[in-house]
Amino acid sequence: MIRAGIFGATGYTGYELVKILQQHPQIVTAFATSQSFAGQHLSDVYPQAPHLPLILGENAPFDTVDVVFLCLPHAAAAETAVLALAAGVIVIDLSADFRLKDADTYASWYDKTHPAPHLLAEAVYGLTEFARDWLPGAKLVATPGCYPTSILLPLRPLLTSNLPITGPIIADSKSGISGAGRTPRQNTHFVEAHNNFSPYKIGRSHRHLPEIEQVMSWFREDAPTLIFSPHLLPVERGILSTIYVNFAKPVTLEEIRPYFTKMYSHEPFVCLLPDGELATLAHVTHSNKCVIGLTMANETTLVITSAIDNLVKGAAGQAVQNMNVVFGLEESLGLI
Amino acid sequence: MIRAGIFGATGYTGYELVKILQQHPQIVTAFATSQSFAGQHLSDVYPQAPHLPLILGENAPFDTVDVVFLCLPHAAAAETAVLALAAGVIVIDLSADFRLKDADTYASWYDKTHPAPHLLAEAVYGLTEFARDWLPGAKLVATPGCYPTSILLPLRPLLTSNLPITGPIIADSKSGISGAGRTPRQNTHFVEAHNNFSPYKIGRSHRHLPEIEQVMSWFREDAPTLIFSPHLLPVERGILSTIYVNFAKPVTLEEIRPYFTKMYSHEPFVCLLPDGELATLAHVTHSNKCVIGLTMANETTLVITSAIDNLVKGAAGQAVQNMNVVFGLEESLGLI
Amino acid sequence: MIRAGIFGATGYTGYELVKILQQHPQIVTAFATSQSFAGQHLSDVYPQAPHLPLILGENAPFDTVDVVFLCLPHAAAAETAVLALAAGVIVIDLSADFRLKDADTYASWYDKTHPAPHLLAEAVYGLTEFARDWLPGAKLVATPGCYPTSILLPLRPLLTSNLPITGPIIADSKSGISGAGRTPRQNTHFVEAHNNFSPYKIGRSHRHLPEIEQVMSWFREDAPTLIFSPHLLPVERGILSTIYVNFAKPVTLEEIRPYFTKMYSHEPFVCLLPDGELATLAHVTHSNKCVIGLTMANETTLVITSAIDNLVKGAAGQAVQNMNVVFGLEESLGLI
Amino acid sequence: MIRAGIFGATGYTGYELVKILQQHPQIVTAFATSQSFAGQHLSDVYPQAPHLPLILGENAPFDTVDVVFLCLPHAAAAETAVLALAAGVIVIDLSADFRLKDADTYASWYDKTHPAPHLLAEAVYGLTEFARDWLPGAKLVATPGCYPTSILLPLRPLLTSNLPITGPIIADSKSGISGAGRTPRQNTHFVEAHNNFSPYKIGRSHRHLPEIEQVMSWFREDAPTLIFSPHLLPVERGILSTIYVNFAKPVTLEEIRPYFTKMYSHEPFVCLLPDGELATLAHVTHSNKCVIGLTMANETTLVITSAIDNLVKGAAGQAVQNMNVVFGLEESLGLI
Repeated sequence: MIRAGIFGATGYTGYELVKILQQHPQIVTAFATSQSFAGQHLSDVYPQAPHLPLILGENAPFDTVDVVFLCLPHAAAAETAVLALAAGVIVIDLSADFRLKDADTYASWYDKTHPAPHLLAEAVYGLTEFARDWLPGAKLVATPGCYPTSILLPLRPLLTSNLPITGPIIADSKSGISGAGRTPRQNTHFVEAHNNFSPYKIGRSHRHLPEIEQVMSWFREDAPTLIFSPHLLPVERGILSTIYVNFAKPVTLEEIRPYFTKMYSHEPFVCLLPDGELATLAHVTHSNKCVIGLTMANETTLVITSAIDNLVKGAAGQAVQNMNVVFGLEESLGLI
Repeated sequence: MIRAGIFGATGYTGYELVKILQQHPQIVTAFATSQSFAGQHLSDVYPQAPHLPLILGENAPFDTVDVVFLCLPHAAAAETAVLALAAGVIVIDLSADFRLKDADTYASWYDKTHPAPHLLAEAVYGLTEFARDWLPGAKLVATPGCYPTSILLPLRPLLTSNLPITGPIIADSKSGISGAGRTPRQNTHFVEAHNNFSPYKIGRSHRHLPEIEQVMSWFREDAPTLIFSPHLLPVERGILSTIYVNFAKPVTLEEIRPYFTKMYSHEPFVCLLPDGELATLAHVTHSNKCVIGLTMANETTLVITSAIDNLVKGAAGQAVQNMNVVFGLEESLGLI
Repeated sequence: MIRAGIFGATGYTGYELVKILQQHPQIVTAFATSQSFAGQHLSDVYPQAPHLPLILGENAPFDTVDVVFLCLPHAAAAETAVLALAAGVIVIDLSADFRLKDADTYASWYDKTHPAPHLLAEAVYGLTEFARDWLPGAKLVATPGCYPTSILLPLRPLLTSNLPITGPIIADSKSGISGAGRTPRQNTHFVEAHNNFSPYKIGRSHRHLPEIEQVMSWFREDAPTLIFSPHLLPVERGILSTIYVNFAKPVTLEEIRPYFTKMYSHEPFVCLLPDGELATLAHVTHSNKCVIGLTMANETTLVITSAIDNLVKGAAGQAVQNMNVVFGLEESLGLI
Repeated sequence: MIRAGIFGATGYTGYELVKILQQHPQIVTAFATSQSFAGQHLSDVYPQAPHLPLILGENAPFDTVDVVFLCLPHAAAAETAVLALAAGVIVIDLSADFRLKDADTYASWYDKTHPAPHLLAEAVYGLTEFARDWLPGAKLVATPGCYPTSILLPLRPLLTSNLPITGPIIADSKSGISGAGRTPRQNTHFVEAHNNFSPYKIGRSHRHLPEIEQVMSWFREDAPTLIFSPHLLPVERGILSTIYVNFAKPVTLEEIRPYFTKMYSHEPFVCLLPDGELATLAHVTHSNKCVIGLTMANETTLVITSAIDNLVKGAAGQAVQNMNVVFGLEESLGLI
């Protein structure tokens, strides 16, 4: 049995992780931390949660675990990662700290000097389907952001193809409110959110933009730029990204689809819809799947609909998927 | 034109009041206060609100107004009322400060010594349909609580009748989340509230209990006690109270209904449903109505369904209704 | 492996059953029927469902199964049960057809002559915690209604005690909209239901009333009558019943609680909350639990809050729990 | 007083129209029709509606009215329009029947031969801010579709400018569920819609596409094509369109904004947000406003956020706005 510690177990991502690990046949949860609820149990925070004691992060016994999952704010995650790695513990980070390879880019988007820039090169960007070759034996894995997962998975077959993509790619994304975190704020108040729908940080201003463009550039050296428009959606969970990709000359779905099927038809967690079907949240909530629909809007514009559960494939589920690969376990263990 | 000042304009009740006064042909809003948003405009807080400047409560110019509406936390409201009355301004209070006639009861339920106990006797409890004779010319009006309004209006014809009511009356009430106020808290977070439904402070522990029982005793000297079970309902606004009243001997709707029709058939804001129909939130949201349905469950138990909009008849609407009567205006002005 | 057939797999209860059986280690689903979608697959109806072919009920091969689950309209269920029993197949019925022991009562509440009155005596009323002794080896099990489950489980320790219960018991129940079934109707239209909350068939007019009173009379010969007020709640799933029980003389929680702990402290699916805590939907959604809170409103009135998931413990979950006991399996198999 | 008749008063659009006309000081509603509820009253369908008798459309007394509003299915609307015009009654149509100028285009998108092609040239396309010069004295007005209104109002200043727009324009639109109509369907069932978000008919397949492109071509002869992606949003009302416009060379907001301010700064119902602000549903629900935000995503791509209430500016409100202009009344009468 692999022994795991969870940092930040009381946030929405942390609790989702606890639930997944409870179902996982090869994992035992050794400890869980919470700065706000230390001394209480997870069941005091979520009525259906297990009776797991919550300790302060600084009291975490690294010597009792093989792996830690970090569901912490940025910067705090990197600081904890340093301690864990020093103690010989594998780190699956769910924060933004190790997603960007460049410390300056990190500093300019996250308003902090990176606490551990020496680890950036080593960290594996854990978009599992893409990172599978680098994950086995990795010491530090950066779990991708929720929006990036929904956008990068469908862009990967296109950008790694020789299809003549042109102009900016547009990702119009809509996320359930759990993506905004558990701390009560005005915009997540039920009364403000319930009958509302609102865009925020559209264009090139959301922190997930540099992350997505970084990985797009790995897929294709001269990848187009991205225009990214996130919206807050009055549901608990789920992301739907509607993505617009232009081609320099007419192409058909018959030409495009093989790149997707070749890359994903054997994947347990990527589901390609038949022609004419569109991805919806109902396809993915509470699952680790990314469901993708392909539609030609005209001869040169492809519209992709891509859906994930932001808390599962967009966070805790993909983290466990990564852990499974790191430890050489069956990749879908605990996730189906 | 009557000149009004609004204290606490940025809470849900305060903003509802602003919207009602905007439609009112005899009122001009002279100032609006906010402790958190002073210096900004109401339209900075609510995108559809008028461009009303917000000032600090301590800077309110009492000499520019005839009446003030207090949408303030308890105790703060009483302190402001003292100042307003000293300045010769009529006070329509929407807080709990002047609802209870007994300062000790207030202290035990609201955890504060009453700031102005000498005003308690003078304050008119503004359940308008009941208080109409005392309102004209009143200096200080206490607008009833939202739950009390939904419960007291239908109980009034029964308790003032000679029907032999027995045993505790049970009010099982369900309120939309705006009733919990605008300050973000964990239980009003969209993710926690959206797929949930939860009772709270049931039995005899909610602060509205002593208020309701006080008024029940005005209706009938030996009124039965109340069991009161509030629940938090995942809608923006509205209260539905399902009320169970037992009789010491068999009675029929034919005997009961005349007490209701005699008291309410000419009321503009109390609507009696025909036999067999039940009140729902859809009957009342965004209106100043209280809609009442009467159903015999058996020979001796009456089930009342009573619905109001907690922000209108349960707060800002009834406050304006009271003001209309105080100033001798048409009671429904600005409210239909 | 036990082979199961599911009749009516495309309704909300049927699909919930399919999902539970998928997780069940001892069950294989041999066939699933649907009158509306025969010829298609379950995944055509629910995007996350397994690719299960749907056949017409009249084509169901009884010889391929050990047990059938009937998620059918009333009357249709009884007719299918007759065929199944004749073929030697065990029947777990989720309809109302075998819940009432008296065919005349059935006829008067369900507007049909019972299609198989000779089976009523034999059918086991599968409130599992109560029926455990009669279930092993049963041929025909009637799964209780959703409201009855939420009301009967907490009433059982009281009614089988010698506590002096008096007067009618009141159950004020609130149900998520999946309880109204999958067929689109005006009252389940999103726009009508989303900002609404509505009582219906209150008093003594809902079909679950005779079922609840029948079982109450099994618990205590001279059980009090029930007043039952169902309400439609704008959430997908979950029932909360707030239940009011009066005693003929003062009692304390210290006297009442032992009857609950003795009966339920070892039950895997009944959860008693500590004093002062109240059951909410968040305690139970997507689980087979019934969570019960006990609060004294005054010396002689107990308020019970009781929560279940209407589709799980209120339907498909309890059906599988019953099947487990019938076949001598671990009772919680596939349900935790 | 102008006398109006309403055809199809019980749909969501029809009822919204009734509510607006009730507030209108110059209109009296002479009759209202409903095929499904004839013989009943509107208050039997909507509990807060006026006690308006509903008659069959074929019994409508045209001689008692000056104007009719048609909230009917397509084709039925055109047939009624012919009768009304023959009776000398002005027609404000809210259906799709007179929006497209070309009968063949109509036939190919609406699967019907147009019932009155001779009227197409005469009908005024009532995007009020655009059509103001043609409306006074018009006999037949086609109220634009809800999506088209949200897209065409912000595109108008751009397309009528000399800015070098290139490539397809993309409109990613999200609509509340009232847009799908009142007839219960599976996709509008509360349980299916409440936790879901789903695209439909994306690309170039929605019936509003030819309507939008027709008007775009009026604004600019060589207007680019449109890619249009509608999505179903789990709120009652409101449309948010996120629109992407590319320019052939770099432009700035300072160059773009004047076209908007010149065209709209004096409009009562078009509201331009300051730089950096984004339109949300909270800006517009229950109002006749179109709120527009402008954001440059990069040097050559403008992102427009445009919000309306689909039932008001997207239907009944704009219909009344048009009627006001037709009859020479103050344009905002009954709408503020």
